[in-house]
Amino acid sequence: MFTQVTNDKTIGPGRAYLIGAGPGRADLITVRGLRLLQQADVVICDRLVARELLDEIRTDGELIFAGKSPGHHTLTQDGINRLLVERVRAGRQVVRLKGGDPFVFGRGGEEALALRLAGLEFEIVPGISSALAVPAFAGVPVTQRGLTTSFAVVTGHEDPTKPESQTDWPALARMETLIILMGVGRIGEIGRILLEEGKAAQTPALAVSRGTTDAQRVVRSTLGELAGAIERSGLESPAVIVIGAVAGLHDLLHWYRPDGKAEGFVERESLALLTEAVVEGA
Amino acid sequence: MFTQVTNDKTIGPGRAYLIGAGPGRADLITVRGLRLLQQADVVICDRLVARELLDEIRTDGELIFAGKSPGHHTLTQDGINRLLVERVRAGRQVVRLKGGDPFVFGRGGEEALALRLAGLEFEIVPGISSALAVPAFAGVPVTQRGLTTSFAVVTGHEDPTKPESQTDWPALARMETLIILMGVGRIGEIGRILLEEGKAAQTPALAVSRGTTDAQRVVRSTLGELAGAIERSGLESPAVIVIGAVAGLHDLLHWYRPDGKAEGFVERESLALLTEAVVEGA
Repeated sequence: MFTQVTNDKTIGPGRAYLIGAGPGRADLITVRGLRLLQQADVVICDRLVARELLDEIRTDGELIFAGKSPGHHTLTQDGINRLLVERVRAGRQVVRLKGGDPFVFGRGGEEALALRLAGLEFEIVPGISSALAVPAFAGVPVTQRGLTTSFAVVTGHEDPTKPESQTDWPALARMETLIILMGVGRIGEIGRILLEEGKAAQTPALAVSRGTTDAQRVVRSTLGELAGAIERSGLESPAVIVIGAVAGLHDLLHWYRPDGKAEGFVERESLALLTEAVVEGA
Repeated sequence: MFTQVTNDKTIGPGRAYLIGAGPGRADLITVRGLRLLQQADVVICDRLVARELLDEIRTDGELIFAGKSPGHHTLTQDGINRLLVERVRAGRQVVRLKGGDPFVFGRGGEEALALRLAGLEFEIVPGISSALAVPAFAGVPVTQRGLTTSFAVVTGHEDPTKPESQTDWPALARMETLIILMGVGRIGEIGRILLEEGKAAQTPALAVSRGTTDAQRVVRSTLGELAGAIERSGLESPAVIVIGAVAGLHDLLHWYRPDGKAEGFVERESLALLTEAVVEGA
């Protein structure tokens, strides 16, 4: 039985489970993540987590919002770490439910370290990362044979023009597929640096907000035009940005219709032309 | 109800679902992926998929192995594409179950393109990528505040010394965190190139085979020593390799005990020293 696979190791002394809730859509949580969530004594939850998941928490369970909407932290990271340690020490089964994956720009490493330093047990339950799944829901494979053998993921949170910026944008500019998280606010500066470092202005580019949810919005553009296109569209953060030939595959492979209306399929005659355009954009 | 989230859009004319089965462990499939798998008329399955998942297929469903163990393809990629198109055209609900994520080195883009060219409907159901989850099961967050703001994922399948190699190894050598999939066979050449391009020999490195499963094995080394360490260990492919400061976090954050035996926790006194070593390796 499938349930036997999941229910091992969930009974015992206090333990923390750092669980990825996935990219926004509730049913993209893992089976393991959902079952542990349903069993938890305590759930410490981020704001970017699907509402439907909160309905799965035990009615006698404790639910704590850790906050983390932009510009608003209900708890500091230290506060979250302390809370985790305290509840696990008290013998509780504690789920830390985080948007995306806990170990991809999720501070999961810091929380795991706090638990380890306290001598407490924890487990990591990976989640579907928005870095990969949001492009997929916009019809963009982050790799494609013949186009790419690699991809890079970077946070656009840091100011790239500051001398203390740790990010090696010149090296990132050479990546075939570049995925930028939390980059809408700085896409102007980031775009300029990538162009200066030699990335072609006509490189296909794409920005997706609220990807995988009913409110998904896609802006399809080129590197040279992306900042302007995002501004004109009023696209809101957080969004996932993809720069590279694979972003052009959106024109062929877009499939998700969040509004339920049928999208016109691409005319078969135009496919050859589009495919050429995609490959030339590489 | 949570089930309502999942059961929309699953009834209708023929349709393909390209589903990621996740990194090996059965319960790391998504809730959506599992439910669609349970409902499918036809399942076309890769070899690297957890056995327990196959027990979830309808007893009256058709199960087809597409093969893809190393050096052995039961069906060619063209053959898989044709089969997908044929079964969907016949009005079936067809699940294409792939290891990891269908759009991360999974040929999912090619299958989606074949379906689109045939005018057929498809849906992508992301899976947990081994590129991120296997490091997590070895206690390695692919990002960590203060250590990394980016990571890159590359296939090591291609011969890096061939002139037609498309991969920009010099740029990849500058990435703070480098994750190499399918790289065990060529780790000697890849390691040499990274060293030539200036990556420090003492950079922490790690290789993990059969990650997330009961047979998970970890080899912890440095870039300079990794190829030798893998060879001596007899570690088998496929494996996930991580090169970068975050690989050193394994020493602090390893948590998964595939054999069920309690691992000794790191002594608290040695943590400060280890943390320093990790940061110095950056």
